[in-house]
Amino acid sequence: MQIKKIGEFGLINRLQQRTNLSDPSIVQGIGDDCAVINISKDRLLLATCDVLLEGVHFNLRHTDSYHLGKKALAVNLSDIAAMGGVPRFYLSSLGLPPHLRLSWVDNLYKGMKTLAKENGVSLIGGNISSSRIIFIDITVLGEIKPREIVYRYGACTGDAIFVTGTLGDSALGLAALRSRKKIKDPLALRRLTKKHLSPSPRLREGRFIAANRFATAMIDISDGLIADLRHILKNSCQGAEIWVDAIPFSPEVIRYSPLYRMNPADLALAGGEDYELLFTVPRKKLNQLLHLSKEFSFSLTMIGKITGERGKIRLRKTGGEPLRMQKEGFRHF
Amino acid sequence: MQIKKIGEFGLINRLQQRTNLSDPSIVQGIGDDCAVINISKDRLLLATCDVLLEGVHFNLRHTDSYHLGKKALAVNLSDIAAMGGVPRFYLSSLGLPPHLRLSWVDNLYKGMKTLAKENGVSLIGGNISSSRIIFIDITVLGEIKPREIVYRYGACTGDAIFVTGTLGDSALGLAALRSRKKIKDPLALRRLTKKHLSPSPRLREGRFIAANRFATAMIDISDGLIADLRHILKNSCQGAEIWVDAIPFSPEVIRYSPLYRMNPADLALAGGEDYELLFTVPRKKLNQLLHLSKEFSFSLTMIGKITGERGKIRLRKTGGEPLRMQKEGFRHF
Repeated sequence: MQIKKIGEFGLINRLQQRTNLSDPSIVQGIGDDCAVINISKDRLLLATCDVLLEGVHFNLRHTDSYHLGKKALAVNLSDIAAMGGVPRFYLSSLGLPPHLRLSWVDNLYKGMKTLAKENGVSLIGGNISSSRIIFIDITVLGEIKPREIVYRYGACTGDAIFVTGTLGDSALGLAALRSRKKIKDPLALRRLTKKHLSPSPRLREGRFIAANRFATAMIDISDGLIADLRHILKNSCQGAEIWVDAIPFSPEVIRYSPLYRMNPADLALAGGEDYELLFTVPRKKLNQLLHLSKEFSFSLTMIGKITGERGKIRLRKTGGEPLRMQKEGFRHF
Repeated sequence: MQIKKIGEFGLINRLQQRTNLSDPSIVQGIGDDCAVINISKDRLLLATCDVLLEGVHFNLRHTDSYHLGKKALAVNLSDIAAMGGVPRFYLSSLGLPPHLRLSWVDNLYKGMKTLAKENGVSLIGGNISSSRIIFIDITVLGEIKPREIVYRYGACTGDAIFVTGTLGDSALGLAALRSRKKIKDPLALRRLTKKHLSPSPRLREGRFIAANRFATAMIDISDGLIADLRHILKNSCQGAEIWVDAIPFSPEVIRYSPLYRMNPADLALAGGEDYELLFTVPRKKLNQLLHLSKEFSFSLTMIGKITGERGKIRLRKTGGEPLRMQKEGFRHF
């Protein structure tokens, strides 16, 4: 059997089942946004790694190396944000073709370093190999207090489902980069493509949610709202109802998705690479969350609720008919 | 300018100079076998990452996936050994072509897991991407007590230079795999190719050296004796004298290197991928080291001494003429 038959998540599950976690300091192994290790009484170590691969995750015709470096670090910082953690250190493993210009590599590092500095993260190591295709594999180490950490499990029936920011921008930005049809408003085009080429990890929001213990479960949206919601539901043994007309969209997504024969809801549900946070909040904490998030100017939107219907996701318009899903998000293989 | 002009170490130096290590918990950033982080009063965290890349580090005609998995972890464990540390956890980032057989991937993991289990290391996370070429990028986290750690710096004039095991086997094993001329003794062939395809990280030796505080400086030999010795010399502001006829060779290297028009000394000096430890020992600790290493049956050999001639490596036959070097070891780009 070829691996494309069981797919990325099939491989990960297979691996997870065969992993022997006999080490008592492992709080969380494979299966969440980060691994979690008990390093002292009052601190947990977070570890995550993710790769950007030429031809799979990026196309050199669409991005310069500065933004590529930023994104390679951003997708990893987003995993730290999804646990509510504070990123501290990173290691970078680079595969680079020998004919590459030095300035290209300098800008790649400049991109990483800019985002690292903004977030107080330091480069501590790595390696460089000659390679036919470019890859940037980053490991980020972070930390969090034990009482603050948020996992993919823990969502309860009745919890409200929230997302940060707006959804679908990244997927529409990618469509705009790939298509010959161009959005004529340069500012709108830039906003959409920026969301794809240079996403902002929601570290401040993640810390806000974790430090105030607002969330019962959390994940970052990298594969699309539905695909990532499924991880929370599976790990929490729950179902969900999503109110499609409550999903937050940017004006650009609403205005320009028809140009590419797309609609905002599909972009949000299955688009992926938004790197927004998706989290669940108990009813009793709603008022405090909404009040405080306003005070700190965080953009948070309630888009549904957790139901007891294990594994089931129902899409609804507020008070309206159930809707049918088309696609579920990006998968490798 | 293309990156191949400044090379792997040029790129690393460039990067090291531009890295801003303002975080006080970073004990050692880029520039040693592992990064070292202060996580508590009595423990340092070690972090290292290294990749094996199809067509650069391995050839699928020479290795099966079980041994490839083992080696991918081994080269990282070797970096932990080179600090004297205890490896604890690893993350694996895999790039796999979709048409790959599932059994191939299962065996890759089996190889990693076997070596991991032998050394008490647990898989805690990672990611899998579809990729045209296979890569296995592993990050290992380890730990060590602050008083035990050994860096690349610290070697003093007069210190003895030691290596573990024998040198040159891996490079000759690779030559045997690549050549049409075959060694007829199957046991000898297997011993040599095993050293290349499935090296054993010298974790026990590293711990022995570190726990007894025998070494002033240490590194693992991945790029060849000379290239890796240069790292110790550069970081310690020293020179060295190497006694070529004291270098330890296996019977297989002595017997079969002429078949491939090689000689044992060149294989050891510039061959690379031995994953043995190279370390320096003050004169006053020599007796204790030799006594204890015999008791524990460690194979350690004195091959030279540190001199004050900064940056200079002299090759000598014991009591004989200085020799000239041919090559200095493997470099990317």
